[in-house]
Amino acid sequence: MTSKVGRSTLKMNSSPAIISYGAVAGKKESEGPLKDHFDKTYSDDYLGQDNWEKAECQLQKDVVSITLEKANLKADDIDIVFAGDLLNQNISSHFSLRDLNIPFIGMYGACSNMAETMNMASIFVDNEAAENALALTSSHFCTAERQYRFPLEYGGQRTPNSQWTATAAGSIIVGPANRAGPYVKQICIGKIVDMGVNDINNMGAAMAPAAADTIRTFLQETQTKPEDYDLIVTGDLGKVGSRLLIELLQQDDITIEQQYNDCGLLLYDLKRQEVDAGGSGCGCSASVLCSYILPKIKNGSLKDVLFIATGALMSTTSFQQKETIPCIAHLTHLSNTQWEEEE
Amino acid sequence: MTSKVGRSTLKMNSSPAIISYGAVAGKKESEGPLKDHFDKTYSDDYLGQDNWEKAECQLQKDVVSITLEKANLKADDIDIVFAGDLLNQNISSHFSLRDLNIPFIGMYGACSNMAETMNMASIFVDNEAAENALALTSSHFCTAERQYRFPLEYGGQRTPNSQWTATAAGSIIVGPANRAGPYVKQICIGKIVDMGVNDINNMGAAMAPAAADTIRTFLQETQTKPEDYDLIVTGDLGKVGSRLLIELLQQDDITIEQQYNDCGLLLYDLKRQEVDAGGSGCGCSASVLCSYILPKIKNGSLKDVLFIATGALMSTTSFQQKETIPCIAHLTHLSNTQWEEEE
Repeated sequence: MTSKVGRSTLKMNSSPAIISYGAVAGKKESEGPLKDHFDKTYSDDYLGQDNWEKAECQLQKDVVSITLEKANLKADDIDIVFAGDLLNQNISSHFSLRDLNIPFIGMYGACSNMAETMNMASIFVDNEAAENALALTSSHFCTAERQYRFPLEYGGQRTPNSQWTATAAGSIIVGPANRAGPYVKQICIGKIVDMGVNDINNMGAAMAPAAADTIRTFLQETQTKPEDYDLIVTGDLGKVGSRLLIELLQQDDITIEQQYNDCGLLLYDLKRQEVDAGGSGCGCSASVLCSYILPKIKNGSLKDVLFIATGALMSTTSFQQKETIPCIAHLTHLSNTQWEEEE
Repeated sequence: MTSKVGRSTLKMNSSPAIISYGAVAGKKESEGPLKDHFDKTYSDDYLGQDNWEKAECQLQKDVVSITLEKANLKADDIDIVFAGDLLNQNISSHFSLRDLNIPFIGMYGACSNMAETMNMASIFVDNEAAENALALTSSHFCTAERQYRFPLEYGGQRTPNSQWTATAAGSIIVGPANRAGPYVKQICIGKIVDMGVNDINNMGAAMAPAAADTIRTFLQETQTKPEDYDLIVTGDLGKVGSRLLIELLQQDDITIEQQYNDCGLLLYDLKRQEVDAGGSGCGCSASVLCSYILPKIKNGSLKDVLFIATGALMSTTSFQQKETIPCIAHLTHLSNTQWEEEE
């Protein structure tokens, strides 16, 4: 059963377990530092499909089937699935899930999707509205580029602050608290923050204030400090946004540098792989969480982790209409222990 | 506290109250049969804004402020808002809410948004994860036409099966069970259903099987009959989809004709207003619910209502790639009594 810690922070009193997780990744991602951690990798962008949208859909299909298999579950064992992606009208999620016949809630939080869907899955399980709930998201470099930026054939130059949309997908199953962890202990629901950034080639800078707002709110409401966590990891702020986040929090005397990292910096070797400011996309934080962070919590090398996935909520239309970029960050407090064990 | 009635149906044991609701509508909608029911109407498509997207955003801003005012609440009194709309990346919701500083969960269910957001708000309140939760959605004829179909300036002909996207918005506040109703008693989470329809000018036909699936599932899991409800109302099946829904359910010996209606048929005078097969869009079911149905439950002229909002989950890209249309329908069981009073 859930209780309110503050307006934004909710405590999952049963500490639901993440009973399974999976991550799949594209060619570039599988040549990066996390290459040995993914459940499946691909050597071309099409995954044997006719077009990139179907390829992204295939990423999701594969990661769901891997995640189910690792838990020895079938689609029918899942009570509800929360999913979303970056494509207009969430088509990757709708087409990947349409044959599975699972009650479905569509979500949109741009690159914050992994935390947003995991948080909703946790609320459902914590309150016994679901026994097993699936959270799912993905992104694909080629589908995102052609939807948000330029046709790839055009060969446009990238700016040094731009980030590389990951071709990857991640999914987790939140299940009963009596199963082995990692566990979800708390969640913090982000607010929309828009500090007036309008450069769509510098998403990290646009999203950093939203991440700062959520981290600040969570620490205040829980009366905890950065030192209480082994890792504070954002979704895809990249090089520019990460630096900004550290500075923004420092202004409020919150020092996170010791514990801090960013999935967009973990996924690639920035210089060697020429990804400019780092990785981005729903699949970036999702695949890093599900391949690298969750296993470390499971094996005890990380104890308490704050996972903060960040999303930029503009569209090409709003950009063309000269709007600034509203952003959001949702936080999940993950742990290798449950509330019962401590209190 | 929520309990599972079946895999898809959840019982809200506290029977959360809908403590406030509001509906705003555009010119055409305010010339239809419900003209005297809306909280606010507009005489032009721009609402004094530079472009249609900002106009749709203004619809949402207005309906939120009306809904708050009717409950004598401020934005700070709302713990969480669930919102989504039809535009790419939900920009109407993101831009309308960015100044309100409320913890935000973005959702996408196409025209099923009103039920999807209301259901999530109900889950949060029922489990005391929120005291007051806002659900919000909108659509605008001009933003939808130019995004999904043709530039309006082109003056394309409409097919007789096509539906008219409503310029309208609706919002509700789900609050504590000790307040006056209407009340949310049960919800049923829809599954993605795709029966192979690929005519994007006949959404009603595409969505009818999803509505049938959700209604059938709900009646089975709750072991109730259509006669147990005063009204069974779908979101926007229109003339074609409504007829199909009745036939599909009849095949399973479920006769809903006596109790059945559709928001897309209630919002307009189909012939006089030349809207072909009826209304559609997130704002259609939202504004009919919040102007016409909820007041009737409140004053007791309707007792138990099944509200089933339907959504078509394709995009222009998936259509161009010759995909069929996956659809969904989410159900909310609304009542003028609470569980306690009966049991």
